[in-house]
Amino acid sequence: MRIGIVGGTGKLGSGLAVRWTRAGHEILIGSRDVGKARAHVDELALDGHGPMEWADYAGAARGADVVVLAVPYEAHGQALEVIREAVAGKIVLDVTVPLKPPKVSRVYLPPGQSAALEAQALLGEGTPVVAALHHVSATHLADAAHAIECDVLVASDDARAKDAVMQLVGDLGLRALDAGALVNAIALESLTAVLIHLNRVYKSQGAGVVLTNLPSRSPR
Amino acid sequence: MRIGIVGGTGKLGSGLAVRWTRAGHEILIGSRDVGKARAHVDELALDGHGPMEWADYAGAARGADVVVLAVPYEAHGQALEVIREAVAGKIVLDVTVPLKPPKVSRVYLPPGQSAALEAQALLGEGTPVVAALHHVSATHLADAAHAIECDVLVASDDARAKDAVMQLVGDLGLRALDAGALVNAIALESLTAVLIHLNRVYKSQGAGVVLTNLPSRSPR
Repeated sequence: MRIGIVGGTGKLGSGLAVRWTRAGHEILIGSRDVGKARAHVDELALDGHGPMEWADYAGAARGADVVVLAVPYEAHGQALEVIREAVAGKIVLDVTVPLKPPKVSRVYLPPGQSAALEAQALLGEGTPVVAALHHVSATHLADAAHAIECDVLVASDDARAKDAVMQLVGDLGLRALDAGALVNAIALESLTAVLIHLNRVYKSQGAGVVLTNLPSRSPR
Repeated sequence: MRIGIVGGTGKLGSGLAVRWTRAGHEILIGSRDVGKARAHVDELALDGHGPMEWADYAGAARGADVVVLAVPYEAHGQALEVIREAVAGKIVLDVTVPLKPPKVSRVYLPPGQSAALEAQALLGEGTPVVAALHHVSATHLADAAHAIECDVLVASDDARAKDAVMQLVGDLGLRALDAGALVNAIALESLTAVLIHLNRVYKSQGAGVVLTNLPSRSPR
């Protein structure tokens, strides 16, 4: 698959790019500043990762089959406006967590209740939004040799888009779980503030979440 | 401790009562109907659990040091009104999950964003509300001989009340984790709809949640 990562120079976006490249996917790193995207791809190449392509936000969205939205929440609305036309009809994987700095260990519900619900409302029904990857520590993800003790809960109103993303999550080396309708992104996104709190209190560098007592691993 | 369980004839309330009695706590089972509370205590006694006391909602709240609110969300507001005076200044452990039947596998945010936040707003600052125990399956809890693979995330704005509840959670044989401020109850309560969805899709009878990568088990 060709995966465009809007916000691909960030820590989470980079980690995803590295792991997906290893799994055989083609990656487009998207940054607001094309020069920054290119420099980032060069840096990753120096570390032995790639090859990857680079573009601005709209370019990364235009050239891809699946578009990952991995920007800080403050930039979420603006990034959506920029990629809106380019993503029409494509799968949008929104990994955004609404946080209100500096109080990032407190749940913050955005006006639309969740970033992914806001994205779906803006993009319209023809462009399925999938919410996932809110709990995987970017640090763990960047360390591609490492097994990550964290499940990935995947929510969407579009079954086909959800399946495609669950497959992509599997390609990261992680267990994907069907977390239901997109409205459940409220639970997934808000849990991240709790993980940040746990990191502080228990001095962890990447608390994760694992679901237990799921006898059948493959759904349906 | 003397623990009053408002909604103690329900499955979750019963499971808590059985496990806390074993740990040496005194239990008051509270039902809207005193006769039902008494019948339930008799039933539990026949199964070898107890001794326990019984009362109506207000009576269970009045006679206890810690009051557990374990009613369906539809009855939450009304139960709070009934116990309001009796719980003044006590610790209220709210285990309520806002769900909107029949769509119980979809996150439902109540008007106050979380049941526990609604309880705190109604009871006022002098009565600390603690949110916890939203993810432990009542079935697993009722089976007192069984180890439960599920952590308990505990949220409150009152550190002393949070500590007391974390201790009580430990007495259930479960790991309690400090999940931060009471606003984080939004994340804890909403996650239950996701667990219900997982139970359906993966044919589980009690999906649970375990937090990973927490190097130090005892906080502070």
